[in-house]
Amino acid sequence: MPDERGRARGCANNSENMTTEHLFLRACLRQAVPRRPVWMMRQAGRYLPEYRATRARAGGFLNLCKTPELACEVTLQPIDLMGVDAAILFSDILVIPEAMGMELQFLEGEGPHFPNPIRNAADVAKLTDPDPEVELRYVMDALRLIRKELNGRVPLIGFTGSPWTLATYMVEGGGSKNFSTIKKMIYADPVSAHKLLERVTESVIAYLTAQVAAGAQAVQIFDTWGGILSTLDFRAFSLNYIKRIVQAVPKVGPDGQRVPVIVFVKGGGQWLEDIADTGCDVMGLDWTTDPTEARRRVGDRVAFQGNMDPCVLYAPPEVIAQRTRAMLTAFGDDPGHIANLGHGILPDIPVEHAKAFIQAAQAEIGG
Amino acid sequence: MPDERGRARGCANNSENMTTEHLFLRACLRQAVPRRPVWMMRQAGRYLPEYRATRARAGGFLNLCKTPELACEVTLQPIDLMGVDAAILFSDILVIPEAMGMELQFLEGEGPHFPNPIRNAADVAKLTDPDPEVELRYVMDALRLIRKELNGRVPLIGFTGSPWTLATYMVEGGGSKNFSTIKKMIYADPVSAHKLLERVTESVIAYLTAQVAAGAQAVQIFDTWGGILSTLDFRAFSLNYIKRIVQAVPKVGPDGQRVPVIVFVKGGGQWLEDIADTGCDVMGLDWTTDPTEARRRVGDRVAFQGNMDPCVLYAPPEVIAQRTRAMLTAFGDDPGHIANLGHGILPDIPVEHAKAFIQAAQAEIGG
Repeated sequence: MPDERGRARGCANNSENMTTEHLFLRACLRQAVPRRPVWMMRQAGRYLPEYRATRARAGGFLNLCKTPELACEVTLQPIDLMGVDAAILFSDILVIPEAMGMELQFLEGEGPHFPNPIRNAADVAKLTDPDPEVELRYVMDALRLIRKELNGRVPLIGFTGSPWTLATYMVEGGGSKNFSTIKKMIYADPVSAHKLLERVTESVIAYLTAQVAAGAQAVQIFDTWGGILSTLDFRAFSLNYIKRIVQAVPKVGPDGQRVPVIVFVKGGGQWLEDIADTGCDVMGLDWTTDPTEARRRVGDRVAFQGNMDPCVLYAPPEVIAQRTRAMLTAFGDDPGHIANLGHGILPDIPVEHAKAFIQAAQAEIGG
Repeated sequence: MPDERGRARGCANNSENMTTEHLFLRACLRQAVPRRPVWMMRQAGRYLPEYRATRARAGGFLNLCKTPELACEVTLQPIDLMGVDAAILFSDILVIPEAMGMELQFLEGEGPHFPNPIRNAADVAKLTDPDPEVELRYVMDALRLIRKELNGRVPLIGFTGSPWTLATYMVEGGGSKNFSTIKKMIYADPVSAHKLLERVTESVIAYLTAQVAAGAQAVQIFDTWGGILSTLDFRAFSLNYIKRIVQAVPKVGPDGQRVPVIVFVKGGGQWLEDIADTGCDVMGLDWTTDPTEARRRVGDRVAFQGNMDPCVLYAPPEVIAQRTRAMLTAFGDDPGHIANLGHGILPDIPVEHAKAFIQAAQAEIGG
């Protein structure tokens, strides 16, 4: 990747670019920063009219994910329009199961659907082991293009769903209210469930490794559905596999820089110590977790990312600013905090409200 | 209530009845019991064919709630059919907002609906203060009838929704995915939100006080939606009002017996100490909370109720039995555990699977 190495060197020779790029990466590693970095989960999303326009042009969500130029375009929109301090690859967690051989549909307004879900060991055996540079080449091309287009303005985050979270969709066949089908599998047929999780884990490790090689400067593992499990089942069926991934992902990128790993378990506030024990650099916190209490519990082993309730952005901008300042205060002055929402930004949030959040977070220190 | 006093005295003269009735109430107060009591949240529900038959006869869910003879019939079904150790009044948490003047509809297969939700201080001001023996007379009549029909076999639990949980339905107009409307209210107009919660709290206190007078021998406060809040918002908008209720409910019933108060906050595992501080006798735990860790955190101030994942009941009976035994072991041999699910039993659970849970829980000690 001559372009990227060139860019990284360019960065090192340009103190302004370096500072901007380093804000997020330094905070991930709990190093001192001049101000706290901020980004928003799902920041390239439907709340932005520009995103909706690009998506309409792409002719659907999956086309948008699979066209590197368009994925790059929507990835960069929040950087240009909102001024966030990090870019996150535009993609979907379910491209992995699709690359493993499962037919995936996104029906307009209905969410993801796997018409042939995994139900037993025979279904698991039919899954393939994708080569990320083949079946997921469009993701890697998007990452390379985004890095080039970003040109060092802000760092680029890659991501994956956790094996457990991916498995919920693969087994349920889509979203779920009670997750009764996959829970029935883990309770009644844990051997098949573990076999599935192992296969997905191997694919995720290959996928994140390729993302780092293609230019991802940090990676986030989204465990959206870990929080629906009991403590023992969370450890056995979700955390165990997250830990394998954290341990296996390259610690250093092609430019020689540390690649921080962020683990976000929605609803994982009871298991903070366990999550920190995976060896991740950053823990994403949802808004139900008290930041002061979180720091007391895990010490300074990890940085935190989060954690404002995305619904605060429904309030008027002055309330958003006040709540953002209160959140920053709760995380304290320690290095190692990346301001963010506690879950993805919702599609009907006014753009001005999102800006109020970003600006309040960036204004705090030195403001 | 001459009937009830008669029954209570009859109980005291009949050692077998006394023991059965006392299992649940003694465990609530952390007193020694010969075996652990067990019941299931939503045990009078759709998984039972007999319930579905009575509901069909009633001509709808609200009619069933409002006809004391039929509410009594379905309350007793799980006692007779499943052998649970406590009865819980069959009703719905939303009868309170309806008694406060809000039109309530249950559309078949769609859940509850308030066509004129609360949106501001003017809407709150229009609410009335119901007299439980007038507007909610059907509940009190049901309680009196159930006590009579139970005849001391097992104790009778009354219940309410927490003010916060009731308010979510009153403001959203029904169930919700993101609770954006009520969250907008608490963030942008906290004064109106608190006014609403105060009004609901007063109605709940009057309602539970009347339930105890009518024969409820324990009361449970369901905070189904407390877990969607941040820690600070949970304390301010939910726990604060739960505490007022716990403090105000009569500690002793008309028969001179202690009336334990159970507080169940779904998703409240991060706030166990705060919940115990309300002064409740029993804390309901959902399945995400580790029982051993919960006991370590709150000490022996309270009894615990719960906490098996309701989805375990999708597994084969032998797995249910094994998981139930593991749960009992995790709660340990201390007195002060009422076996239960961590949330309501799901409508499509086979009856034999529910029985496997009840039987495994009852077989544990002395089995």
